[in-house]
Amino acid sequence: MPGTVHDWANVAESEPLPGFIGKVLHSDTMSFALWRIRAGSVLPEHSHVHEQVVNMIEGEFELVVDGETLRLGPGMVAVIPSHARHSARALTDCRILDVFQPVREDYRNGLSAAVIGGGRS
Amino acid sequence: MPGTVHDWANVAESEPLPGFIGKVLHSDTMSFALWRIRAGSVLPEHSHVHEQVVNMIEGEFELVVDGETLRLGPGMVAVIPSHARHSARALTDCRILDVFQPVREDYRNGLSAAVIGGGRS
Repeated sequence: MPGTVHDWANVAESEPLPGFIGKVLHSDTMSFALWRIRAGSVLPEHSHVHEQVVNMIEGEFELVVDGETLRLGPGMVAVIPSHARHSARALTDCRILDVFQPVREDYRNGLSAAVIGGGRS
Repeated sequence: MPGTVHDWANVAESEPLPGFIGKVLHSDTMSFALWRIRAGSVLPEHSHVHEQVVNMIEGEFELVVDGETLRLGPGMVAVIPSHARHSARALTDCRILDVFQPVREDYRNGLSAAVIGGGRS
C-alpha cells in the first residue's frame, strides 16, 4: 500500500463558524482539522460519535466537556470521548489541530456548519 | 463522559532508537507520539497494523513507504496505511507528531524498541 502526502499549504481554508477558520484532510481512519481561531469566538455545545483529540499549538482555549471546564494552553492535549457534549471559547487567538476518529464524513467536502450541526448523537 | 487533559510538558521522554527522542500519550482509540529527531537518524524498515499519520512540525524527513520515497517538510502530512512497510531518515533535525489508529498497545508503558520491533504484520 503506497503512502499519501498532503501539504497543509495547499488545502483551502473556510470559516464554517464565525472566528473559526480551518482546513481539513482525511486519512483512511481519521480526520485532521487545522484551525486558526479568533479571540472571543464561541463554539456552541454539540456532540458527535467521533472521538476528538484537541492538540493545542498556540493560545488559551476554554473547553467544557460534559459540564466540566478545562483550561487549555500550548502543548496541552484534550481528549473528548465519543458522544460527549462539548462547547468552547477562545480566550486568545488560538491555533489548534483536532484529530477525529472515525473519519468525519460530514467534512468530506471541507469544513461545514456541521462543526456545530452534529447535534445530539 | 468527562474529558481528559494531558500536558506534553509532563510526559517523560525516552530514546527508543538512536536519535529518536519521543514521548507518547493515548486517547480511547488513538496514540500520539511527539518526536525530536536528530539529523541523520535512521528508522529501519518495519510495518504494523496501525494506520500512521506523520505530521511534520519542523525539519526535512525522508520517508519510504512501500518502496516509494516521500520527501517531507514543515506543514506536510504523510499517511502510512495499515500494514505498509516503511522506513525513514532525518535529513535535518526534525520535530514530528505521529498519530496512530488503533491505540499502540506496545506503547502503553511508553515508547519502546517496538518502534521498530513491529516487524512484518
